[in-house]
Amino acid sequence: MAEAFRIGLLGHGTVGGAFETLLTERCEQIAAITGLRPEISGVLTRSRGDFEEILGGCDLIVELMGGLDPARDYVLRAIAAGRHVVTANKQLLSHHGEELWGAAREHGVQLRFEASVAGVVPVIRVLQESLAGARIDRIHGIVNGTTNYILSEMASRGCSYADALADAQRLGYAEADPTEDVNGRDAAAKMAILARLAFDTPVHIDQVTYEGIELITADDMQYAEDLGLGLKLIGTAERIDGKLAVRVHPAFLYSGHPLASVHGPFNAVTVESEAITEITMSGPGAGGPQTASAVLGDVISAMIPPASTPETTQALQIVDDVESAFYLHMEVEDRPGVLAEVAALLGAEGASIKSVVQQGLGERARLVMVVHPLLESRFFEAVARIGSLDFLRSPPRAIRVIDEEFV
Amino acid sequence: MAEAFRIGLLGHGTVGGAFETLLTERCEQIAAITGLRPEISGVLTRSRGDFEEILGGCDLIVELMGGLDPARDYVLRAIAAGRHVVTANKQLLSHHGEELWGAAREHGVQLRFEASVAGVVPVIRVLQESLAGARIDRIHGIVNGTTNYILSEMASRGCSYADALADAQRLGYAEADPTEDVNGRDAAAKMAILARLAFDTPVHIDQVTYEGIELITADDMQYAEDLGLGLKLIGTAERIDGKLAVRVHPAFLYSGHPLASVHGPFNAVTVESEAITEITMSGPGAGGPQTASAVLGDVISAMIPPASTPETTQALQIVDDVESAFYLHMEVEDRPGVLAEVAALLGAEGASIKSVVQQGLGERARLVMVVHPLLESRFFEAVARIGSLDFLRSPPRAIRVIDEEFV
Repeated sequence: MAEAFRIGLLGHGTVGGAFETLLTERCEQIAAITGLRPEISGVLTRSRGDFEEILGGCDLIVELMGGLDPARDYVLRAIAAGRHVVTANKQLLSHHGEELWGAAREHGVQLRFEASVAGVVPVIRVLQESLAGARIDRIHGIVNGTTNYILSEMASRGCSYADALADAQRLGYAEADPTEDVNGRDAAAKMAILARLAFDTPVHIDQVTYEGIELITADDMQYAEDLGLGLKLIGTAERIDGKLAVRVHPAFLYSGHPLASVHGPFNAVTVESEAITEITMSGPGAGGPQTASAVLGDVISAMIPPASTPETTQALQIVDDVESAFYLHMEVEDRPGVLAEVAALLGAEGASIKSVVQQGLGERARLVMVVHPLLESRFFEAVARIGSLDFLRSPPRAIRVIDEEFV
Repeated sequence: MAEAFRIGLLGHGTVGGAFETLLTERCEQIAAITGLRPEISGVLTRSRGDFEEILGGCDLIVELMGGLDPARDYVLRAIAAGRHVVTANKQLLSHHGEELWGAAREHGVQLRFEASVAGVVPVIRVLQESLAGARIDRIHGIVNGTTNYILSEMASRGCSYADALADAQRLGYAEADPTEDVNGRDAAAKMAILARLAFDTPVHIDQVTYEGIELITADDMQYAEDLGLGLKLIGTAERIDGKLAVRVHPAFLYSGHPLASVHGPFNAVTVESEAITEITMSGPGAGGPQTASAVLGDVISAMIPPASTPETTQALQIVDDVESAFYLHMEVEDRPGVLAEVAALLGAEGASIKSVVQQGLGERARLVMVVHPLLESRFFEAVARIGSLDFLRSPPRAIRVIDEEFV
C-alpha cells in the first residue's frame, strides 16, 4: 500500500465537492503515477473545520474558498508552514500575487494556480513551462465564459443583451449577481495573471484597463455578421515599444482568427511569439468537474517534482493608451454634410476611415464606419467631439476591431 | 556568472540550426529562470563531431538527427551515461518508446519529446502533466501539416490533389518525397505516441491503422462543402469497450467541430474526457524555429525539475475494427433499380442510410450517401459487394464522417 499524501481542502462548494469526487475516482491511477495515495485529510468550510488543525495534518493545501479574506492569510500561513498550495483564486493572485509567489520562493514550496484562469485550459502551465524560454509578444484571450455565452447567444439568436443574460442565469452560466463578469473585471483579474507570467512583470488587477459588454446591442451583432466579423470580450496583454499594455474590452474579430470560432461558455487563449508563431488553447472555462480537473493536475504535479514561479527579471512599464482599429456606430439626422463633419473631426485626430456604410431610416440615418488603427486617446477625443454635434440622435458607440486582414 | 549547462547537439539541420540560434538569443532569460547558463558544448553531424566526446562533455543531449539508426543507439548510450535527453524523433519513439522510457526510468534521467508530435503545440506536456490524473476517452488530432495544407488548398481553391501537392512542395510544406506524409504513416507515428501517453498502454506504430489522402478528389471537397462539412486527415485514439483503437484516415468533420477551423500547415489536438469535457490545442506543426521552441521548452524543464514517463499501469487491448459513419460516393449507370440494389447490399450488412443525393449526368448518375455508424468491417464488406455490381462505372469511394450532430 502506497504512503498517503494528505490534502487539506479549504472550501467545499461546487468545485471543492467536484474535487473530492474526482480525487476519489482517480486515486488508484494517481497512486500508480506518483507512488503516493492522495486523500482529503481535512475540510474547512464556514461551518466546520479548524484551519490550524487541518494545516498541521496535511502535506498540501487546496484553496477553493475564493475572495481575498481570509484566503490570503490562510495561503500565507500554509506557505510559511512549508506546505505546497494549489489555488483557483484569481482575485487573490491578481491582488497579492507577488507577495504569495515571493513567500513560496522563500519557503521553497510550490504555489500552483492552473484553475485560476480559463478553467481546465492549461494556459498557466504552458506559459510557465513550455514557453519558459519564449519571448512572448502578445496574448489574446476569451477568459470569461459568461460573457462569451451571452455574446454567442446574441449572435446566433439575434436576441438582446438582457434576454441573453437572463438565459445565461437560468442555465447556470451566469450568477445571480453577474456584475464582475459582464463589466470585464473578472476577465481583468485573469489577464493580470497571464500578463505577469508571459511578460515577467508584476501586474496588479488595478493596472488592467477593462470595459464590459453591457452596452452591446443586437444591432452591433448584426453589423458584425454583415462585415464577416465575430464580436467577443477579448483580454489582451501585449508588448508595445518596450512597455506592456493589458486590457479587456469587446472587440470584433475577423472570421479566420483562432478565437472567432470559440463559442458558448468556452474559454480560449492565443499566445503569439515570433519563434512559435502562435499557439491557441481552448476548453471549458468553468464548471465543477472541469475546474476540479485543473486543480487535480496541479496537485499531481506538486506530488512529483518541484517548480516555482521565479522572481520577475524585468519590469516592463505598463501603459494604457495603445493603438486600435475601431468600429463606430452613429444614429444621425439624415441631412447633407453629416458624413463630412464626422470625417473632419476624425481626421483632425489622425483617424483614417477604412470603410463606411450609411443607411437611410426616414428622417434619420445610421452611419457605421471602421477606422484604421490609431492611438485610443486620440480616437476617443474625436468621438467626444462627434458626440456633441447637434445632428447626433444618440451617443456614438465605438467597439475595437482586432483584424490585421480586415483593417 | 551563472554556472554552465552543457548541451550536446546531435544533428544540425533546419531544426538543429534554429535551436542553436534560439538558445543564443534566449540565453540570458534562461539563466535568470534556471540559475544555469545553457551552451552548446558539442555538435554531431555526418561530417563532424565524435559522439563519445560530446557525451562526455555535456549535461544533456538534444537529438535532432531523426530516423532509427544511429539515433536509438545514441539515445540509449546517453541515458545509460546518466544524461537527460530531449528528442524530436517520432519514428524513434513510435518504434522503440517503451525501451527508451524504460531505460530513462532505470537510470533516473529525463527523456522529453514535446517536439516529436505537433511541433510547438504543447500536447505532450499537457497529457503527461495537466491531464496526468484524467481518464481520457478520446483524442482527435490533425498531426500532419503537409496533408492539412494540401486539403486546405483543395477546399479553398477547388484544385486537384496533385496541384495542391505540387504547391505544397514549392512552398516547403511538403518534402521532395512526401510519401510518409500523404499516406498517413507520419501521422500514425505521432498518434502512437499520443495514444501511449493518454491511455497508459504501449502502442507501436505497426499497431496503428492508417490511410492517406492520395485518393481524395476535388469532387469530395465539393460535396463536403455542400454538406457543410470539412475534410481533414484525422488521427483518432479512443477507448472502446475497454479496448483501444488508434487510427489515421481522412474524415469529414461538421463545421462546429474544434478541428474543422484548423487550416493550412497548422496542427491541432482535441482531448476528450468526461470530467474535462474537451481541450483543444493548436499551432504550427512544423518549421525550424517553432520546433526548436518546443525543444527549448523541454531543455529548460530538464534544467529545473525531474520528471519521468511512468511505466504503463494498464495495457488496453488494441483493436482495429471500430464503428464509423461513412460517406459513400458512386458513379453508376442511370437506370432503374440501382439505388435499391445498393441499399439492399448495405442493409444486408446492417448499414442504415442517413441521406442520399442522386444526380443524373446523361447516361451516368452520381450517387452519394451518408450512412449511420456501423462496424467498419461490415461496411467495407458491403462496399466490396457494391464494387462488383455491373452498373458501377468506377470503384465506390468511402470516407469516414466524424459528426455526432450530423449523422
